[in-house]
Amino acid sequence: MKVVSTVAEAYALVDHWRRGSMRIGLVPTMGALHEGHYSLVRRSVSECDLTVATIFVNPTQFGPHEDFGKYPRTLDEDLEGLKSAGAALVFTPSQSALYPEGFSTFIEPPSIAAILEGVHRPGHFRGVATIVTKLFQILPANVAYFGLKDYQQLVVIRRVVEDLNLPILIQPCETVRERDGLAMSSRNRYLSELERLAALSLHRALNVAEKMVTRGCCVVAEIEQAMEKELYASGANHIDYARLVDAETLATMTSLTQPCVALIAAFVGSTRLIDNRLMPY
Amino acid sequence: MKVVSTVAEAYALVDHWRRGSMRIGLVPTMGALHEGHYSLVRRSVSECDLTVATIFVNPTQFGPHEDFGKYPRTLDEDLEGLKSAGAALVFTPSQSALYPEGFSTFIEPPSIAAILEGVHRPGHFRGVATIVTKLFQILPANVAYFGLKDYQQLVVIRRVVEDLNLPILIQPCETVRERDGLAMSSRNRYLSELERLAALSLHRALNVAEKMVTRGCCVVAEIEQAMEKELYASGANHIDYARLVDAETLATMTSLTQPCVALIAAFVGSTRLIDNRLMPY
Repeated sequence: MKVVSTVAEAYALVDHWRRGSMRIGLVPTMGALHEGHYSLVRRSVSECDLTVATIFVNPTQFGPHEDFGKYPRTLDEDLEGLKSAGAALVFTPSQSALYPEGFSTFIEPPSIAAILEGVHRPGHFRGVATIVTKLFQILPANVAYFGLKDYQQLVVIRRVVEDLNLPILIQPCETVRERDGLAMSSRNRYLSELERLAALSLHRALNVAEKMVTRGCCVVAEIEQAMEKELYASGANHIDYARLVDAETLATMTSLTQPCVALIAAFVGSTRLIDNRLMPY
Repeated sequence: MKVVSTVAEAYALVDHWRRGSMRIGLVPTMGALHEGHYSLVRRSVSECDLTVATIFVNPTQFGPHEDFGKYPRTLDEDLEGLKSAGAALVFTPSQSALYPEGFSTFIEPPSIAAILEGVHRPGHFRGVATIVTKLFQILPANVAYFGLKDYQQLVVIRRVVEDLNLPILIQPCETVRERDGLAMSSRNRYLSELERLAALSLHRALNVAEKMVTRGCCVVAEIEQAMEKELYASGANHIDYARLVDAETLATMTSLTQPCVALIAAFVGSTRLIDNRLMPY
């Protein structure tokens, strides 16, 4: 496994492979890797000739009061894990390599970025869209793998790719969970033992929503209220949103007449967690 | 010469050529072609294995009160000219092919886009940066040719390419002029016979600036005033700007201590014209 940190080296390698008609898979990450990330890498390894992972804690997708400074950085461990998972190349650029002096071009993300996470993390998707577009240029892969845990991110990235004609396929992958149902996240490391229990509240609230839908309830407001109730009852201390929206457009619905997804963002202690589930339809 | 209008066909062709190790040159245009455009195509033909031109009057770079509707469209003539100049492929997409329903991702151009043209044509460079980025994805060329007549556009595009790591080389090319010095422009077609004479005012004002610099004047304000005076004297009826700025950063200067460029945007009748000249240094 090669590890490179300059844009020029990274591009030269991937461009060379691609000209050799290799199918290249890309797994962009912010490091602090867990089984969720490794499952993306393994999927890419199984579907592509060569898999490229990136490790870059992207400053432009963090708000001024968010956890950029304390975001976990575990490079040595990450590199070992990526090697075991079968990655051929890891790109580990510095901040100044990707955001040199005078950098000032951004991707203005599609309108779907303005709701939900966009309300609570203004600027987040602008940063995500920008870094993803840059990485797709530096590492011209055929397909990029993203976890469904960041559901709205996936929808945003898919739209950016479509709108800007980026020649890459976006492959969504199932969320990987702990045994008890907690969605894997680099931010789970922030949780104390007690908070770890309360973190299950998101999974429980999604169970509640799914049960209601299965039993035939189709009033969105009722289901959203039930999710909120369960979140607080199970230990969340603040809810950014607990919504049931159109699975494709993330548009507000009043009754369940099309495929929809339940999306939750909530705080457990000072840790912000997100999770989601496609509802049976 | 092939002419294609779908994104899929265009990408497939250029990607195929590129994989065959062909060097691809790209000349993006809005049609209404003149010798300025054809000189770009001929330069590309002389430097590359295959040259791709695009003809697309890009709506997102026009302001609501600008000339999108009446912008000259001369497709048949353009195609003949491109064939003579040696283009291998012309991409002539429809508006809906490039801006389908729901399109909402834009390139937020670099800070250098906010001054000069950016002041007088708000949103213009956002549209330019967006369409150029899209075309660079659809037609993955090695090098793209742009005329120096749109000086600030070139500086903006260069910065977009650098900031977003777009894997393409931007090649500036000399402005092509009529015998009397008028910079060629698709908008020259709007000029009446009298206005055609007055349109020379830009060239004359640039002559004045160059003479002053050659004679040792290095007070920017004096030179700018002299350009304005000449513009009005020679028939311009409104000046958007007549400035002497840093040739690389377009930053304001008070005295001529580094390479600089004179930039003019002025109206002759209801036609807005631009021109520029690098000053001797």
